[in-house]
Amino acid sequence: MSILDRIQEPNDIKKIDEKDLPELAQDIREFLIANVSETGGHLASNLGCVELTIALHRAMDFPADKLVWDVGHQSYVHKILTGRKDQMTTLRKFGGLSGFPKTSESDCDAFNTGHSSTAMSAALGMACARGIKGTQEKIAAVVGDGSFTGGMVYEALNNMAEVKTGCLVVLNDNEMSIDHNVGGMSSYLSKLRVGQPYNDLKNGIEKALMHIPVAGEKLAKGLKRSKDSLKQIFVPGMFFEEMGVTYIGPIDGHNIRMMEETFRRAFKLNKPILVHVKTIKGKGYKYAEKHPCYFHGISSFDVATGKVKNVEKGLSYTAVFARKLIELGTENNRIVAITAAMSKGTGVNKFAEEFPDRTFDVGIAEEHAVTFAAGLAAEGMIPVVAVYSSFLQRAYDQILHDVCMQNLHVIFAIDRSGLVGADGETHQGIFDTAFLSHIPNLVIMAPKNRYELTRAMEWAVAYDGPIAIKYARGQAYYGLKDYNEPVEYGKSEILREGSEIALVAVGNMVEETEKLYNRFLQEGRQVTFVNARFIKPLDKEMIDHLAETHKLIVTIEEGILHGGYGALVEEYLESKASDVKVLPIAIEDTFVRHGSVEELRKMLKIDAESIYRRIRDIME
Amino acid sequence: MSILDRIQEPNDIKKIDEKDLPELAQDIREFLIANVSETGGHLASNLGCVELTIALHRAMDFPADKLVWDVGHQSYVHKILTGRKDQMTTLRKFGGLSGFPKTSESDCDAFNTGHSSTAMSAALGMACARGIKGTQEKIAAVVGDGSFTGGMVYEALNNMAEVKTGCLVVLNDNEMSIDHNVGGMSSYLSKLRVGQPYNDLKNGIEKALMHIPVAGEKLAKGLKRSKDSLKQIFVPGMFFEEMGVTYIGPIDGHNIRMMEETFRRAFKLNKPILVHVKTIKGKGYKYAEKHPCYFHGISSFDVATGKVKNVEKGLSYTAVFARKLIELGTENNRIVAITAAMSKGTGVNKFAEEFPDRTFDVGIAEEHAVTFAAGLAAEGMIPVVAVYSSFLQRAYDQILHDVCMQNLHVIFAIDRSGLVGADGETHQGIFDTAFLSHIPNLVIMAPKNRYELTRAMEWAVAYDGPIAIKYARGQAYYGLKDYNEPVEYGKSEILREGSEIALVAVGNMVEETEKLYNRFLQEGRQVTFVNARFIKPLDKEMIDHLAETHKLIVTIEEGILHGGYGALVEEYLESKASDVKVLPIAIEDTFVRHGSVEELRKMLKIDAESIYRRIRDIME
Repeated sequence: MSILDRIQEPNDIKKIDEKDLPELAQDIREFLIANVSETGGHLASNLGCVELTIALHRAMDFPADKLVWDVGHQSYVHKILTGRKDQMTTLRKFGGLSGFPKTSESDCDAFNTGHSSTAMSAALGMACARGIKGTQEKIAAVVGDGSFTGGMVYEALNNMAEVKTGCLVVLNDNEMSIDHNVGGMSSYLSKLRVGQPYNDLKNGIEKALMHIPVAGEKLAKGLKRSKDSLKQIFVPGMFFEEMGVTYIGPIDGHNIRMMEETFRRAFKLNKPILVHVKTIKGKGYKYAEKHPCYFHGISSFDVATGKVKNVEKGLSYTAVFARKLIELGTENNRIVAITAAMSKGTGVNKFAEEFPDRTFDVGIAEEHAVTFAAGLAAEGMIPVVAVYSSFLQRAYDQILHDVCMQNLHVIFAIDRSGLVGADGETHQGIFDTAFLSHIPNLVIMAPKNRYELTRAMEWAVAYDGPIAIKYARGQAYYGLKDYNEPVEYGKSEILREGSEIALVAVGNMVEETEKLYNRFLQEGRQVTFVNARFIKPLDKEMIDHLAETHKLIVTIEEGILHGGYGALVEEYLESKASDVKVLPIAIEDTFVRHGSVEELRKMLKIDAESIYRRIRDIME
Repeated sequence: MSILDRIQEPNDIKKIDEKDLPELAQDIREFLIANVSETGGHLASNLGCVELTIALHRAMDFPADKLVWDVGHQSYVHKILTGRKDQMTTLRKFGGLSGFPKTSESDCDAFNTGHSSTAMSAALGMACARGIKGTQEKIAAVVGDGSFTGGMVYEALNNMAEVKTGCLVVLNDNEMSIDHNVGGMSSYLSKLRVGQPYNDLKNGIEKALMHIPVAGEKLAKGLKRSKDSLKQIFVPGMFFEEMGVTYIGPIDGHNIRMMEETFRRAFKLNKPILVHVKTIKGKGYKYAEKHPCYFHGISSFDVATGKVKNVEKGLSYTAVFARKLIELGTENNRIVAITAAMSKGTGVNKFAEEFPDRTFDVGIAEEHAVTFAAGLAAEGMIPVVAVYSSFLQRAYDQILHDVCMQNLHVIFAIDRSGLVGADGETHQGIFDTAFLSHIPNLVIMAPKNRYELTRAMEWAVAYDGPIAIKYARGQAYYGLKDYNEPVEYGKSEILREGSEIALVAVGNMVEETEKLYNRFLQEGRQVTFVNARFIKPLDKEMIDHLAETHKLIVTIEEGILHGGYGALVEEYLESKASDVKVLPIAIEDTFVRHGSVEELRKMLKIDAESIYRRIRDIME
């Protein structure tokens, strides 16, 4: 029986002898590697925080104490230690364990996360609730250094210093976010990492120093001016201390005993404390240590070689975008690329290789990314902001207030739009049309295939005003290659002109709709098949035409219903008092959990088969 | 001829003799006080930055150089100095000057602002554009200390340190945002304010210090460890320096010569520099100095007494909310109030007087406010987040991802929902229904009058899940007092049952619709009049009933059309294949400039008279 087998329930870890903990860590690493090599998932960050999680579990009691994992992709070890080891084979699968913390999955998960930099805000809220209730539970947030590039962390620090209640922040510093970190904070943390460790012995040091005679009046005066000034000489982490949060560290994030002891002491102090822990992303698996970005989120792989098993054939939309962006950037030196710590994920890294001076990775800071782009556009640049759909939600106000209100020529390249699959509800890009389509001045495009994406990009560069182009995660669609009606402002593309039923599909749903179209064709029904292409402005002429000549217009999109494309069509037709019936196929008012895109489409009844049945029910 | 009269065009200020500048400042102050006492507007912050604006205008050239005003309500002096003095009488009036910077108003306005903490991001974008273009213009952002509680500032600092291009940030520190400042950053700035001023002489000091003999080996070792360590003893502003931005200050923000000289030198250094300037909010007008919050934004007032001329009679919705919140908080100690630097504006200050331990002002940090509330709710509190509608846009992702996805019981009290009038396009609360109504799990209410607001609040406390209650700026409606159908989940209130035409009004538009109803009544037409009350979930039963018994359903709301209440009604009826016609009265796809609410409603054709005509056109 391995040490890991002795952990079946929360807090079982406290029964393990301290000397056996390194072996436990080893067991967990082997388990993680074996498991994730089958299921896929976030490997490197979980390998990096094995000891950290063990130390936290020894210093805390679950579910009484509250532990919030920032972003949450690094919570696998926590899941294993809270009775979910046997379910890890179902990780990220439809109906299986989520790859992120879920309160619905275990009462040991205190708060759901997924987007970056939220954990400190949530933990502080919990700490304030504890103060009001008069209870005594321990509260901690584990936050990666990558998340420290996001503004919410600063807002939380600012508030933490104000309310002064006990709240432990573990800064899990592996020198990485998804990509390598950027910015002033990252440089600052680098300086701390190489500095002398510092802990709460500091009061002793300070007292001793106050009595050392100093020659040179000016210096002595300076030193004596305040205790704070003196502290600054020896104290790393002044950034945090000056914000009003006690800093301890940096300490070795693979030394369980030291961390456990530090956390125990930190909890006792009952004030906001930041413990800076240095970890190695991917630790214990040589391929992951060497290529932490690659092993950040990975599909199933061969443990012996570190190679991914099923390499997708064909280019992804991301790759198509990246290639085209370089081409456009070569022709037009006003084009600049901006990303928010998703350089590889969005393909902006390729542009950066060619045009380093025209590429900006601003860190996990979508809000700043968008307003920064607005500044660039105000001075004549053509910024392309490449961000994942679900993360762009962060910048709703900046898109509206800083870009669209001034009608600035900023191009939003919205990657991972639509269902993303295994990452689940926090990452589904299903709200973009709803939160963007009511913003005045914004044009929204959704190309049907890889060829149209490149033409949409060309068109967007030539256009003058805010414009969003959205495309799905994963492999680009290669079909319908011969349908390439030139892009024209606000014009849809009629792929096949038929009668009775018109299928109007948006972006990646054109591919799914092609199946539907073919099925009707097999049945001998020649239906109309339209690629919406522009979500906004709506092609009213096309809709008028369809309304006059068809009985039913079916709009098909992989996004939320209300505020979506179908809703725009319905609103328009209502204003025309048209008699045509509209069936809007979209995601009903619900969040969408994890699973494969196929499974999810079936569940949501937006797959070709379900749509076929829904149409048949209406037409009968 | 006064000194001020000699300033007719941009850069005229450079022709003024330096000795005359104090007189100019005095002229501007008198002009500001006289002008704003008539037009209303933001007085105190503009009085505080007279000398600062003069110094910037002497160190910069307009429109070649780019100056971005954070929030922008302090840009009046800039407007006066760039040829807009004579138009100041039209300030904030329909068709007149905006109270905020507008690129459409003058080429000396580099970037439109309105919401907090965006200026550094925009200025940095401009600075990067300059680098790509190879031009030489100077770029500066003026940012109040209040805005330094917002996370975007930190994201911009982080990025500034990365790109390292010349960009001047003037931290205009008056120890205030709209309200008094809060949080760690505020305490830190307080420490800086009382510290020794520090400027670029620092290199000299450091060199001298390195040669002073020091007794005490440990200390000497510590001091010599690095130049950085040494700097920390004498250098205030280490927070900024550690982020990678050079700090200069604090300097007197009313000393024109010193500021001008500092700015000129800062521009030459061609790196990110923060100049910390201390100003007095309201300076030069005793009432404003004494009551800077009161004179932050004010309607027309008597100069001699400082008293507002037309005191609104009756309670505002804000006051009704504040009173009721205290009542609810007295009965239920799980209720906590959260605001984001809008304590007075939202009435949360009243709750704070009664329940200081259950009130949290988190600074200008809507994102943190919402996730912090989610943390409180996760631990059993009932947080009420009171924020203005247009500022809640900042927290779209947090509402969706941190509150609604976990179905947490957070109450959003959305003040200033609908048209707000004189503050104009950045402040109109017209997007809330559109950006909230597609979020799963969220309930949205819009009470018709003051009585219903209190009942909605009672109901929201008893409900378990995320819920938003929206209400308008200004005086609460007292009419329709006798209509008080008990609040029931998702149920509208039928005020008068008629025939043919059904008017379904949302929130503050119930009052406007009452006029419309009465007009129909005078004509002898008994139409149906419904108070929507719940925007989401939609009262489908009520809509079914109306659809069966009427020819026309008119939905009436003061918000953007697409994604609005009317759209929800249309979508529902389309799914029912109903024959009833729907006329959605809402704001078409446009941003709405400043003016009185009445003027704006007329312009947008959502006033009773316009709606009447639109209905008549359809029914004829």
